[in-house]
Amino acid sequence: MSASGTLTGIGVGPGDPELLTLKACRAIREADVVAYPANAAGESLARDIAAAEILHAALELPVLVPMCTDRAPAQTAYDDAAGTIARHLSQGRSVAFLCEGDPFFYGSFMYLFARLGETYETRIVPGVTSLTACAAALGRPLAARNELLKVLPAPLPEETLKAELRGADCIAIIKVGRHFEKVRRVLRDAGLNGAAAIIESATRDNQRITALDDIPDGEQPYFSTILAYRGDEGW
Amino acid sequence: MSASGTLTGIGVGPGDPELLTLKACRAIREADVVAYPANAAGESLARDIAAAEILHAALELPVLVPMCTDRAPAQTAYDDAAGTIARHLSQGRSVAFLCEGDPFFYGSFMYLFARLGETYETRIVPGVTSLTACAAALGRPLAARNELLKVLPAPLPEETLKAELRGADCIAIIKVGRHFEKVRRVLRDAGLNGAAAIIESATRDNQRITALDDIPDGEQPYFSTILAYRGDEGW
Repeated sequence: MSASGTLTGIGVGPGDPELLTLKACRAIREADVVAYPANAAGESLARDIAAAEILHAALELPVLVPMCTDRAPAQTAYDDAAGTIARHLSQGRSVAFLCEGDPFFYGSFMYLFARLGETYETRIVPGVTSLTACAAALGRPLAARNELLKVLPAPLPEETLKAELRGADCIAIIKVGRHFEKVRRVLRDAGLNGAAAIIESATRDNQRITALDDIPDGEQPYFSTILAYRGDEGW
Repeated sequence: MSASGTLTGIGVGPGDPELLTLKACRAIREADVVAYPANAAGESLARDIAAAEILHAALELPVLVPMCTDRAPAQTAYDDAAGTIARHLSQGRSVAFLCEGDPFFYGSFMYLFARLGETYETRIVPGVTSLTACAAALGRPLAARNELLKVLPAPLPEETLKAELRGADCIAIIKVGRHFEKVRRVLRDAGLNGAAAIIESATRDNQRITALDDIPDGEQPYFSTILAYRGDEGW
Protein backbone atom coordinates (compact mmCIF):
# COMPACT_ATOMS: atom_id res chain seq x y z
CA MET A 1 0.00 0.00 0.00
CA SER A 2 1.32 3.42 -0.92
CA ALA A 3 2.03 6.20 1.56
CA SER A 4 -0.52 8.97 1.98
CA GLY A 5 -0.39 11.93 -0.37
CA THR A 6 0.33 15.50 0.65
CA LEU A 7 -2.32 18.21 0.92
CA THR A 8 -1.08 21.59 -0.32
CA GLY A 9 -3.00 24.80 0.33
CA ILE A 10 -2.00 27.09 -2.51
CA GLY A 11 -2.46 30.85 -2.59
CA VAL A 12 -3.25 31.86 -6.17
CA GLY A 13 -3.23 35.58 -5.42
CA PRO A 14 -5.92 38.26 -5.79
CA GLY A 15 -7.04 37.73 -9.37
CA ASP A 16 -4.42 38.52 -12.03
CA PRO A 17 -3.07 35.10 -13.14
CA GLU A 18 0.39 36.69 -13.42
CA LEU A 19 0.36 37.14 -9.65
CA LEU A 20 0.70 33.39 -9.17
CA THR A 21 4.09 32.52 -7.69
CA LEU A 22 6.49 30.13 -9.39
CA LYS A 23 5.99 27.81 -6.42
CA ALA A 24 2.20 27.84 -6.82
CA CYS A 25 2.51 27.06 -10.54
CA ARG A 26 4.78 24.10 -9.86
CA ALA A 27 2.63 22.78 -7.01
CA ILE A 28 -0.52 22.94 -9.17
CA ARG A 29 1.17 21.17 -12.09
CA GLU A 30 2.54 18.44 -9.82
CA ALA A 31 -0.78 17.69 -8.07
CA ASP A 32 -2.80 14.56 -8.81
CA VAL A 33 -6.02 16.25 -7.69
CA VAL A 34 -6.76 19.96 -7.99
CA ALA A 35 -9.54 21.11 -5.64
CA TYR A 36 -11.06 24.60 -5.35
CA PRO A 37 -14.11 26.38 -3.90
CA ALA A 38 -16.96 26.82 -6.37
CA ASN A 39 -20.48 28.18 -6.29
CA ALA A 40 -23.68 26.35 -7.24
CA ALA A 41 -23.27 27.46 -10.87
CA GLY A 42 -19.86 25.77 -10.94
CA GLU A 43 -18.00 29.08 -11.12
CA SER A 44 -14.70 29.34 -9.29
CA LEU A 45 -12.53 32.43 -9.17
CA ALA A 46 -9.63 30.43 -7.74
CA ARG A 47 -9.81 27.99 -10.66
CA ASP A 48 -10.09 30.84 -13.18
CA ILE A 49 -6.91 32.41 -11.81
CA ALA A 50 -4.94 29.17 -12.03
CA ALA A 51 -6.53 27.75 -15.19
CA ALA A 52 -3.37 27.87 -17.30
CA GLU A 53 -1.48 25.73 -14.79
CA ILE A 54 -4.03 22.93 -14.40
CA LEU A 55 -2.99 19.99 -16.50
CA HIS A 56 -5.59 17.94 -18.36
CA ALA A 57 -4.36 14.86 -16.57
CA ALA A 58 -5.24 16.19 -13.13
CA LEU A 59 -8.49 15.18 -11.51
CA GLU A 60 -10.52 18.27 -10.65
CA LEU A 61 -12.56 18.51 -7.46
CA PRO A 62 -14.85 21.54 -7.11
CA VAL A 63 -15.89 22.09 -3.50
CA LEU A 64 -19.39 23.56 -3.51
CA VAL A 65 -19.82 25.82 -0.50
CA PRO A 66 -23.30 27.30 0.10
CA MET A 67 -23.08 31.09 0.44
CA CYS A 68 -25.46 31.97 3.27
CA THR A 69 -25.25 33.58 6.67
CA ASP A 70 -26.25 30.34 8.38
CA ARG A 71 -23.00 28.48 9.05
CA ALA A 72 -24.36 24.92 9.24
CA PRO A 73 -24.72 24.15 5.51
CA ALA A 74 -21.19 25.40 4.80
CA GLN A 75 -19.75 23.29 7.61
CA THR A 76 -21.54 20.22 6.21
CA ALA A 77 -20.05 21.01 2.80
CA TYR A 78 -16.55 21.17 4.31
CA ASP A 79 -17.16 17.88 6.11
CA ASP A 80 -18.09 16.26 2.80
CA ALA A 81 -15.15 17.83 0.96
CA ALA A 82 -12.72 16.80 3.71
CA GLY A 83 -14.00 13.24 3.41
CA THR A 84 -13.45 13.16 -0.35
CA ILE A 85 -10.01 14.75 -0.07
CA ALA A 86 -9.06 12.33 2.72
CA ARG A 87 -9.88 9.37 0.45
CA HIS A 88 -7.59 10.74 -2.29
CA LEU A 89 -4.79 11.38 0.22
CA SER A 90 -5.17 7.92 1.77
CA GLN A 91 -4.84 6.40 -1.68
CA GLY A 92 -1.53 8.20 -2.15
CA ARG A 93 -2.71 11.04 -4.36
CA SER A 94 -1.40 14.56 -3.80
CA VAL A 95 -4.14 17.16 -3.50
CA ALA A 96 -3.72 20.88 -4.23
CA PHE A 97 -6.42 23.15 -2.85
CA LEU A 98 -6.53 26.51 -4.64
CA CYS A 99 -7.23 29.56 -2.49
CA GLU A 100 -7.86 33.13 -3.58
CA GLY A 101 -5.16 35.32 -2.05
CA ASP A 102 -3.33 33.37 0.64
CA PRO A 103 -4.54 30.11 2.28
CA PHE A 104 -3.86 31.40 5.80
CA PHE A 105 -5.24 34.91 5.38
CA TYR A 106 -8.99 34.85 6.01
CA GLY A 107 -9.44 32.04 3.51
CA SER A 108 -11.82 29.10 3.49
CA PHE A 109 -8.88 26.70 3.39
CA MET A 110 -8.67 26.73 7.18
CA TYR A 111 -11.91 24.81 7.37
CA LEU A 112 -10.25 21.96 5.49
CA PHE A 113 -6.96 22.45 7.32
CA ALA A 114 -8.81 22.10 10.64
CA ARG A 115 -10.28 18.80 9.47
CA LEU A 116 -7.24 17.28 7.72
CA GLY A 117 -4.09 19.07 8.93
CA GLU A 118 -3.42 16.78 11.89
CA THR A 119 -3.92 13.52 9.97
CA TYR A 120 -2.21 14.24 6.67
CA GLU A 121 1.02 15.95 5.70
CA THR A 122 0.02 19.48 4.81
CA ARG A 123 2.00 22.27 3.14
CA ILE A 124 1.12 25.90 2.56
CA VAL A 125 2.23 27.96 -0.44
CA PRO A 126 1.68 31.59 0.59
CA GLY A 127 0.24 33.98 -1.97
CA VAL A 128 -0.21 37.67 -2.69
CA THR A 129 -3.13 38.91 -0.56
CA SER A 130 -5.87 41.24 -1.72
CA LEU A 131 -4.57 43.82 0.76
CA THR A 132 -1.31 44.60 -0.93
CA ALA A 133 -2.94 44.17 -4.33
CA CYS A 134 -5.44 46.87 -3.33
CA ALA A 135 -2.67 49.16 -2.15
CA ALA A 136 -0.82 48.65 -5.44
CA ALA A 137 -4.00 49.38 -7.39
CA LEU A 138 -4.67 52.49 -5.32
CA GLY A 139 -1.09 53.66 -5.76
CA ARG A 140 -0.46 54.28 -2.11
CA PRO A 141 1.34 52.26 0.54
CA LEU A 142 -0.73 49.97 2.74
CA ALA A 143 1.51 50.88 5.69
CA ALA A 144 4.94 52.41 6.11
CA ARG A 145 7.58 53.21 8.71
CA ASN A 146 6.15 52.55 12.19
CA GLU A 147 2.50 52.91 11.24
CA LEU A 148 0.01 50.69 12.99
CA LEU A 149 -2.11 48.66 10.58
CA LYS A 150 -5.41 47.06 11.52
CA VAL A 151 -7.34 44.56 9.44
CA LEU A 152 -10.98 44.78 10.42
CA PRO A 153 -13.57 42.31 9.12
CA ALA A 154 -16.72 44.33 8.35
CA PRO A 155 -19.10 41.86 10.08
CA LEU A 156 -17.65 42.93 13.47
CA PRO A 157 -20.06 44.91 15.68
CA GLU A 158 -20.28 48.63 14.96
CA GLU A 159 -18.96 49.49 18.43
CA THR A 160 -15.89 47.30 17.92
CA LEU A 161 -15.13 48.90 14.57
CA LYS A 162 -15.60 52.36 16.06
CA ALA A 163 -13.29 51.60 19.00
CA GLU A 164 -10.60 50.02 16.83
CA LEU A 165 -10.38 52.89 14.36
CA ARG A 166 -8.82 54.84 17.22
CA GLY A 167 -5.12 54.17 17.33
CA ALA A 168 -4.93 52.86 13.78
CA ASP A 169 -2.79 54.71 11.24
CA CYS A 170 -3.76 52.46 8.34
CA ILE A 171 -7.00 50.55 8.13
CA ALA A 172 -8.05 47.73 5.83
CA ILE A 173 -11.69 46.71 6.07
CA ILE A 174 -12.40 43.35 4.48
CA LYS A 175 -15.55 41.32 3.80
CA VAL A 176 -17.48 44.55 3.21
CA GLY A 177 -20.48 43.31 1.15
CA ARG A 178 -23.76 43.90 2.92
CA HIS A 179 -21.99 45.70 5.77
CA PHE A 180 -21.05 48.63 3.55
CA GLU A 181 -23.38 51.25 5.02
CA LYS A 182 -22.36 50.38 8.58
CA VAL A 183 -18.69 50.64 7.65
CA ARG A 184 -19.13 53.95 5.86
CA ARG A 185 -21.05 55.35 8.84
CA VAL A 186 -18.27 54.36 11.22
CA LEU A 187 -15.56 55.83 8.98
CA ARG A 188 -17.54 59.08 8.63
CA ASP A 189 -18.04 59.33 12.39
CA ALA A 190 -14.28 58.94 12.80
CA GLY A 191 -13.57 61.57 10.15
CA LEU A 192 -11.71 59.01 8.02
CA ASN A 193 -14.06 58.92 5.03
CA GLY A 194 -12.18 61.60 3.07
CA ALA A 195 -9.06 59.47 2.96
CA ALA A 196 -10.85 56.20 2.25
CA ALA A 197 -11.21 54.33 -1.00
CA ILE A 198 -13.00 51.14 -1.90
CA ILE A 199 -11.26 48.74 -4.27
CA GLU A 200 -13.38 46.12 -6.02
CA SER A 201 -11.95 43.09 -7.80
CA ALA A 202 -8.33 44.25 -7.38
CA THR A 203 -6.00 43.25 -10.26
CA ARG A 204 -8.88 41.74 -12.25
CA ASP A 205 -10.25 43.06 -15.54
CA ASN A 206 -13.23 44.56 -13.75
CA GLN A 207 -11.13 46.30 -11.07
CA ARG A 208 -12.82 49.48 -9.86
CA ILE A 209 -11.52 52.08 -7.43
CA THR A 210 -13.93 54.59 -5.91
CA ALA A 211 -13.64 57.21 -3.20
CA LEU A 212 -15.77 56.03 -0.31
CA ASP A 213 -18.04 59.07 -0.49
CA ASP A 214 -18.71 58.49 -4.20
CA ILE A 215 -20.52 55.16 -3.73
CA PRO A 216 -24.28 55.85 -4.11
CA ASP A 217 -26.47 55.13 -1.10
CA GLY A 218 -27.92 51.64 -1.23
CA GLU A 219 -25.12 50.14 -3.34
CA GLN A 220 -23.24 47.15 -1.90
CA PRO A 221 -19.83 46.76 -3.50
CA TYR A 222 -18.88 43.10 -3.83
CA PHE A 223 -15.39 41.51 -3.73
CA SER A 224 -14.25 44.73 -2.15
CA THR A 225 -11.82 46.07 0.41
CA ILE A 226 -11.75 49.53 1.93
CA LEU A 227 -8.42 51.17 2.68
CA ALA A 228 -8.38 54.21 4.95
CA TYR A 229 -5.62 56.32 6.41
CA ARG A 230 -5.36 58.62 9.39
CA GLY A 231 -3.65 61.97 9.08
CA ASP A 232 -4.37 62.28 5.43
CA GLU A 233 -6.46 64.72 3.43
CA GLY A 234 -7.23 62.35 0.56
CA TRP A 235 -5.63 59.77 -1.65
CA MET B 1 14.06 62.66 -27.51
CA SER B 2 12.49 59.50 -26.13
CA ALA B 3 9.64 59.44 -23.60
CA SER B 4 10.47 58.84 -19.97
CA GLY B 5 10.82 55.28 -18.74
CA THR B 6 8.59 53.63 -16.17
CA LEU B 7 9.58 52.98 -12.57
CA THR B 8 8.32 49.63 -11.28
CA GLY B 9 8.41 48.74 -7.60
CA ILE B 10 8.59 44.96 -7.54
CA GLY B 11 7.82 42.77 -4.57
CA VAL B 12 10.17 39.78 -4.68
CA GLY B 13 8.58 38.03 -1.71
CA PRO B 14 9.99 36.95 1.65
CA GLY B 15 13.07 35.00 0.61
CA ASP B 16 12.41 31.79 -1.31
CA PRO B 17 13.08 32.64 -5.00
CA GLU B 18 10.14 30.41 -5.94
CA LEU B 19 7.84 32.89 -4.22
CA LEU B 20 8.46 35.41 -6.97
CA THR B 21 5.32 36.00 -9.01
CA LEU B 22 5.24 35.47 -12.77
CA LYS B 23 4.61 39.20 -13.09
CA ALA B 24 7.67 40.06 -11.01
CA CYS B 25 9.85 37.74 -13.12
CA ARG B 26 8.66 39.35 -16.35
CA ALA B 27 9.04 42.90 -15.02
CA ILE B 28 12.60 42.19 -13.88
CA ARG B 29 13.58 40.63 -17.20
CA GLU B 30 12.09 43.54 -19.15
CA ALA B 31 13.79 46.28 -17.13
CA ASP B 32 16.72 48.26 -18.51
CA VAL B 33 17.97 49.06 -15.01
CA VAL B 34 17.55 46.80 -11.97
CA ALA B 35 17.94 48.67 -8.68
CA TYR B 36 17.84 47.22 -5.15
CA PRO B 37 18.74 48.12 -1.57
CA ALA B 38 22.18 46.94 -0.49
CA ASN B 39 24.37 47.25 2.55
CA ALA B 40 27.89 48.65 2.73
CA ALA B 41 29.35 45.21 1.98
CA GLY B 42 27.34 45.14 -1.25
CA GLU B 43 25.02 42.42 0.03
CA SER B 44 21.39 42.57 -1.04
CA LEU B 45 18.73 40.09 0.00
CA ALA B 46 16.34 41.46 -2.60
CA ARG B 47 18.91 40.89 -5.35
CA ASP B 48 19.72 37.41 -4.05
CA ILE B 49 16.04 36.45 -4.23
CA ALA B 50 15.67 37.67 -7.82
CA ALA B 51 19.15 36.73 -9.09
CA ALA B 52 17.95 34.13 -11.60
CA GLU B 53 15.72 36.69 -13.32
CA ILE B 54 18.29 39.47 -13.74
CA LEU B 55 19.64 39.42 -17.26
CA HIS B 56 23.29 40.12 -17.90
CA ALA B 57 22.28 42.95 -20.23
CA ALA B 58 20.54 44.90 -17.48
CA LEU B 59 22.38 47.69 -15.76
CA GLU B 60 22.45 47.07 -12.01
CA LEU B 61 22.06 49.86 -9.49
CA PRO B 62 22.66 48.97 -5.83
CA VAL B 63 21.19 51.60 -3.49
CA LEU B 64 23.36 51.75 -0.40
CA VAL B 65 21.26 52.71 2.59
CA PRO B 66 23.08 53.31 5.89
CA MET B 67 21.55 51.19 8.67
CA CYS B 68 21.43 53.45 11.70
CA THR B 69 18.81 54.88 14.01
CA ASP B 70 19.58 58.41 12.85
CA ARG B 71 17.33 59.03 9.86
CA ALA B 72 19.33 61.76 8.13
CA PRO B 73 22.01 59.61 6.39
CA ALA B 74 19.36 57.25 5.01
CA GLN B 75 17.30 60.15 3.66
CA THR B 76 20.39 61.55 1.95
CA ALA B 77 21.01 58.12 0.42
CA TYR B 78 17.45 58.05 -0.93
CA ASP B 79 17.88 61.57 -2.33
CA ASP B 80 20.99 60.43 -4.18
CA ALA B 81 19.35 57.22 -5.42
CA ALA B 82 16.25 59.10 -6.56
CA GLY B 83 18.49 61.47 -8.54
CA THR B 84 20.27 58.59 -10.27
CA ILE B 85 17.03 56.76 -11.01
CA ALA B 86 15.44 59.99 -12.30
CA ARG B 87 18.28 60.39 -14.80
CA HIS B 88 17.72 56.85 -16.13
CA LEU B 89 13.96 57.41 -16.38
CA SER B 90 14.41 60.77 -18.10
CA GLN B 91 16.63 59.08 -20.67
CA GLY B 92 13.85 56.61 -21.44
CA ARG B 93 15.13 53.63 -19.49
CA SER B 94 12.75 51.50 -17.48
CA VAL B 95 13.84 50.96 -13.89
CA ALA B 96 12.80 48.03 -11.70
CA PHE B 97 13.32 48.49 -7.98
CA LEU B 98 13.41 45.17 -6.13
CA CYS B 99 11.76 45.08 -2.71
CA GLU B 100 11.75 42.29 -0.16
CA GLY B 101 8.15 41.25 0.45
CA ASP B 102 5.81 43.83 -1.06
CA PRO B 103 6.80 47.37 -2.14
CA PHE B 104 3.85 48.96 -0.31
CA PHE B 105 4.05 46.92 2.90
CA TYR B 106 6.53 48.59 5.25
CA GLY B 107 9.19 48.62 2.55
CA SER B 108 11.91 51.13 1.79
CA PHE B 109 10.48 51.62 -1.70
CA MET B 110 8.10 54.30 -0.41
CA TYR B 111 11.04 56.62 0.14
CA LEU B 112 11.77 56.48 -3.57
CA PHE B 113 8.07 56.49 -4.46
CA ALA B 114 7.64 59.70 -2.43
CA ARG B 115 10.44 61.32 -4.41
CA LEU B 116 9.64 60.03 -7.91
CA GLY B 117 6.02 58.85 -7.99
CA GLU B 118 4.51 62.19 -8.96
CA THR B 119 6.99 62.95 -11.74
CA TYR B 120 7.39 59.57 -13.41
CA GLU B 121 4.99 56.82 -14.40
CA THR B 122 5.17 54.31 -11.56
CA ARG B 123 3.76 50.79 -11.30
CA ILE B 124 3.67 48.41 -8.37
CA VAL B 125 3.93 44.64 -8.61
CA PRO B 126 2.62 43.33 -5.28
CA GLY B 127 4.46 40.46 -3.63
CA VAL B 128 4.07 37.82 -0.94
CA THR B 129 4.66 39.50 2.41
CA SER B 130 6.68 38.07 5.27
CA LEU B 131 3.46 37.90 7.33
CA THR B 132 1.73 35.19 5.37
CA ALA B 133 5.07 33.48 4.77
CA CYS B 134 5.55 33.34 8.55
CA ALA B 135 2.05 31.94 9.05
CA ALA B 136 2.74 29.29 6.40
CA ALA B 137 6.05 28.40 8.06
CA LEU B 138 4.39 28.22 11.47
CA GLY B 139 1.60 26.06 10.09
CA ARG B 140 -1.19 28.14 11.53
CA PRO B 141 -3.48 30.76 9.97
CA LEU B 142 -2.47 34.40 10.30
CA ALA B 143 -6.15 35.31 10.74
CA ALA B 144 -9.48 33.62 10.03
CA ARG B 145 -13.23 34.23 10.03
CA ASN B 146 -13.94 37.60 11.66
CA GLU B 147 -10.74 37.81 13.67
CA LEU B 148 -9.19 41.21 14.16
CA LEU B 149 -5.58 41.36 13.00
CA LYS B 150 -3.13 44.03 14.10
CA VAL B 151 0.30 44.63 12.65
CA LEU B 152 2.41 46.35 15.26
CA PRO B 153 5.89 47.70 14.49
CA ALA B 154 8.08 46.88 17.48
CA PRO B 155 9.64 50.38 17.71
CA LEU B 156 6.27 51.76 18.89
CA PRO B 157 6.19 52.89 22.55
CA GLU B 158 5.62 50.15 25.12
CA GLU B 159 2.35 51.77 26.26
CA THR B 160 1.00 51.79 22.70
CA LEU B 161 1.88 48.13 22.18
CA LYS B 162 0.29 47.25 25.51
CA ALA B 163 -2.93 49.13 24.72
CA GLU B 164 -3.20 47.69 21.20
CA LEU B 165 -2.81 44.06 22.28
CA ARG B 166 -6.26 44.48 23.82
CA GLY B 167 -8.91 43.84 21.25
CA ALA B 168 -6.60 41.98 18.87
CA ASP B 169 -7.31 38.34 18.06
CA CYS B 170 -4.21 37.91 15.92
CA ILE B 171 -1.05 39.92 16.32
CA ALA B 172 1.95 40.30 14.05
CA ILE B 173 4.87 42.22 15.48
CA ILE B 174 7.37 43.33 12.87
CA LYS B 175 10.78 45.06 12.96
CA VAL B 176 11.56 43.24 16.20
CA GLY B 177 15.39 43.40 16.29
CA ARG B 178 16.68 45.38 19.28
CA HIS B 179 13.13 45.80 20.62
CA PHE B 180 12.81 42.10 21.38
CA GLU B 181 12.90 42.28 25.18
CA LYS B 182 10.34 45.09 25.25
CA VAL B 183 8.01 43.12 22.98
CA ARG B 184 8.38 39.92 24.99
CA ARG B 185 7.67 41.83 28.22
CA VAL B 186 4.49 43.32 26.75
CA LEU B 187 3.30 39.95 25.45
CA ARG B 188 4.00 38.32 28.82
CA ASP B 189 2.12 41.05 30.68
CA ALA B 190 -0.85 40.42 28.38
CA GLY B 191 -0.66 36.66 28.90
CA LEU B 192 -0.03 36.12 25.19
CA ASN B 193 3.50 34.72 25.39
CA GLY B 194 2.39 31.07 25.54
CA ALA B 195 0.76 31.33 22.13
CA ALA B 196 3.53 33.39 20.53
CA ALA B 197 6.27 32.26 18.17
CA ILE B 198 9.12 34.11 16.55
CA ILE B 199 9.92 33.30 12.94
CA GLU B 200 13.33 34.28 11.62
CA SER B 201 14.22 34.40 7.92
CA ALA B 202 10.89 32.88 6.84
CA THR B 203 11.10 30.67 3.70
CA ARG B 204 14.90 31.03 3.56
CA ASP B 205 17.43 28.25 4.10
CA ASN B 206 18.18 29.55 7.58
CA GLN B 207 14.52 29.78 8.61
CA ARG B 208 14.10 29.26 12.33
CA ILE B 209 10.91 29.05 14.37
CA THR B 210 11.07 29.36 18.14
CA ALA B 211 8.48 29.63 20.88
CA LEU B 212 8.78 33.14 22.30
CA ASP B 213 9.66 31.84 25.75
CA ASP B 214 12.50 29.70 24.38
CA ILE B 215 14.61 32.63 23.19
CA PRO B 216 17.44 33.09 25.71
CA ASP B 217 17.58 36.41 27.55
CA GLY B 218 19.84 38.89 25.79
CA GLU B 219 19.40 37.42 22.33
CA GLN B 220 18.06 39.70 19.58
CA PRO B 221 16.56 37.70 16.74
CA TYR B 222 17.17 39.41 13.40
CA PHE B 223 14.97 39.40 10.28
CA SER B 224 12.18 38.24 12.52
CA THR B 225 8.45 38.52 13.03
CA ILE B 226 6.45 37.49 16.07
CA LEU B 227 2.99 36.00 15.61
CA ALA B 228 0.71 35.79 18.63
CA TYR B 229 -2.87 34.71 19.10
CA ARG B 230 -5.50 35.39 21.73
CA GLY B 231 -7.64 32.58 23.06
CA ASP B 232 -5.05 29.95 22.36
CA GLU B 233 -3.09 27.66 24.61
CA GLY B 234 -0.11 27.23 22.33
CA TRP B 235 0.81 26.73 18.70
